[in-house]
Amino acid sequence: MIRISIDAMGGDHGPAVVIPALLAVATRRSDVRFVVFGREDVVRPELNKYPKLADIVEFHHCDVAVRMDDKPSQALRHGRRVSSMWRAIDAVKNGEADACISAGNTGALMAMSKFCLRTMATIDRPAIAAIWPTMRGESVVLDVGATIGADAHQLVDFAILGTGMARALFGMERPTVGLLNVGVEEVKGQEEVKDAGRLLREAGKMAMDYRGFVEGDDIGRGTVDVVVTEGFAGNIALKTAEGTARQIGEYLRAAMSRTLMAKIGYLFAKSAFTRLREKMDVRRANGGVFLGLNGIVVKSHGGTDAEGFAAAIELGYDMVRNRLLDRIEADLDLFHARRPLSSSRSTEFADDSNE
Amino acid sequence: MIRISIDAMGGDHGPAVVIPALLAVATRRSDVRFVVFGREDVVRPELNKYPKLADIVEFHHCDVAVRMDDKPSQALRHGRRVSSMWRAIDAVKNGEADACISAGNTGALMAMSKFCLRTMATIDRPAIAAIWPTMRGESVVLDVGATIGADAHQLVDFAILGTGMARALFGMERPTVGLLNVGVEEVKGQEEVKDAGRLLREAGKMAMDYRGFVEGDDIGRGTVDVVVTEGFAGNIALKTAEGTARQIGEYLRAAMSRTLMAKIGYLFAKSAFTRLREKMDVRRANGGVFLGLNGIVVKSHGGTDAEGFAAAIELGYDMVRNRLLDRIEADLDLFHARRPLSSSRSTEFADDSNE
Repeated sequence: MIRISIDAMGGDHGPAVVIPALLAVATRRSDVRFVVFGREDVVRPELNKYPKLADIVEFHHCDVAVRMDDKPSQALRHGRRVSSMWRAIDAVKNGEADACISAGNTGALMAMSKFCLRTMATIDRPAIAAIWPTMRGESVVLDVGATIGADAHQLVDFAILGTGMARALFGMERPTVGLLNVGVEEVKGQEEVKDAGRLLREAGKMAMDYRGFVEGDDIGRGTVDVVVTEGFAGNIALKTAEGTARQIGEYLRAAMSRTLMAKIGYLFAKSAFTRLREKMDVRRANGGVFLGLNGIVVKSHGGTDAEGFAAAIELGYDMVRNRLLDRIEADLDLFHARRPLSSSRSTEFADDSNE
Repeated sequence: MIRISIDAMGGDHGPAVVIPALLAVATRRSDVRFVVFGREDVVRPELNKYPKLADIVEFHHCDVAVRMDDKPSQALRHGRRVSSMWRAIDAVKNGEADACISAGNTGALMAMSKFCLRTMATIDRPAIAAIWPTMRGESVVLDVGATIGADAHQLVDFAILGTGMARALFGMERPTVGLLNVGVEEVKGQEEVKDAGRLLREAGKMAMDYRGFVEGDDIGRGTVDVVVTEGFAGNIALKTAEGTARQIGEYLRAAMSRTLMAKIGYLFAKSAFTRLREKMDVRRANGGVFLGLNGIVVKSHGGTDAEGFAAAIELGYDMVRNRLLDRIEADLDLFHARRPLSSSRSTEFADDSNE
């Protein structure tokens, strides 16, 4: 049985999108149960529409809902312990749920997740990992916006976290990993990226197959399974790709409705276009996974529909089923066992640590 | 008459692509003349294929060609004063040409351009500006990889440089400008980006209409005419967009050849697909303009064909014709006249400067 906690108040549409998504997931996965948090007056009517949910949903009323434009500090001030977002995260902490899904605002969700779940022992900062459709299948790209900037050690942490996710998600033993940079030659790029590359090359046997630097166009090509970068460049890359896909979709629509011949062609090729649209459907890849925390939290896109929110739930489900946290912890242990603590950030406390 | 100097040895294909491009440009613009630099034994045979070029091309032999994998320092050591790349740039410096075009390696071309032409008086670092096709038309995006990182003052310089280019290229009086960031709220993002935003807001009347922060998906949407960022994120955004376009092109090809119905549909809609392909054709937007130097240098993509190289030449031509450098200098003067020098980088030398 996999138990998922749900913040029903997040996203642009709230329970109207979240609750139907639960039904969609339940029809596809029989061993799922939900703990849902939200305001009784808006969630209960939605729940009542789907009698099938009665057996698999446990509902808890919360007075407070974090708003989409709340700053993280505001959200923590007003929403700690009492908001649907906090309580959904807290359900993971206290063992009532295996993973938490919210379409609420990213900054607030990350702040609350850090505050409530805490980062893993050797991890400085969590990252947000996206699943990126590629020509070869899918890749994991992180960080796509949890924090701005990252030093070499944090980039190495991201590489380990992303490796764990790729192993859990794609069922591969030793995913290939690349550091996003502006050129494949060793001479180029930021010092942090170069240093991280050196650390990864020297790290000895790990669960990852480090392949060196990759460039922006390697992401869509699927050159590596895991693309590692800091949150500023990662967020810009993700949004730029989304924008480009939308732009080409517009071009295509315009081209196909321009002439009678094109319209006829469109009718003949309609199933091909449907296939293409499915391939380009961002809802299928919906869900940013928060990595580096003592618990699984998945952020759904705020503007998505029920199918998109269901995809985010299923992502969380898969992460639980495939033991994401165990894999990450094993990889971190392996890495830190091989690296003397003196060369890591924790130098000063090395003697006091639990070694 | 507009005179363009050409490094015939750059790019993956050298003179075989460069020389036919000259003819393509000459058939479209009657007032263009070329000064071509390269090795006699490979350039002359190409020139001889096109008798029409005899009247408008002046050829100079150079012993040395910068290699595509030369590091900037190597290129400077072996190629200064003697290589086709250097001499093409130098032709701009000594007034023999109005702009220089090369498909040679970016690092070497930038290093030589800086060394030979020098940066403009108040400019710290040059930038590379790309023309980005958008849903609304085209935008200028910079820096796409001249240097990694940029402080607030450099970002402001880039905004002014990009404004000058947009004015010259699109013929608009007051282009809209945005700073690339990871969120539109004022609280997010890098300190440098926030500080640059503040400087631009406070700058008073300028030739630009500063619109605040934009995100990755705003680039393709055409939200602003000029998108400003530092070279790491800019390069990653550009390459990610190119990769995404290629990826979707692949999807489309695969979808259209999958079933008989789709193939028939493709035949009917062929002209629409041709139109789409033209829209997505990266050759049309080929050419990175080096901004902030005392001269116009355009970098063509190394792997392009004659049509792509011709587009880079025409970009240089348009920049000359529309007085890019005059516009930039006027904008810089306006900006610095309104800003007391004490708040710029040059504080210490303000009294010794030529004011």
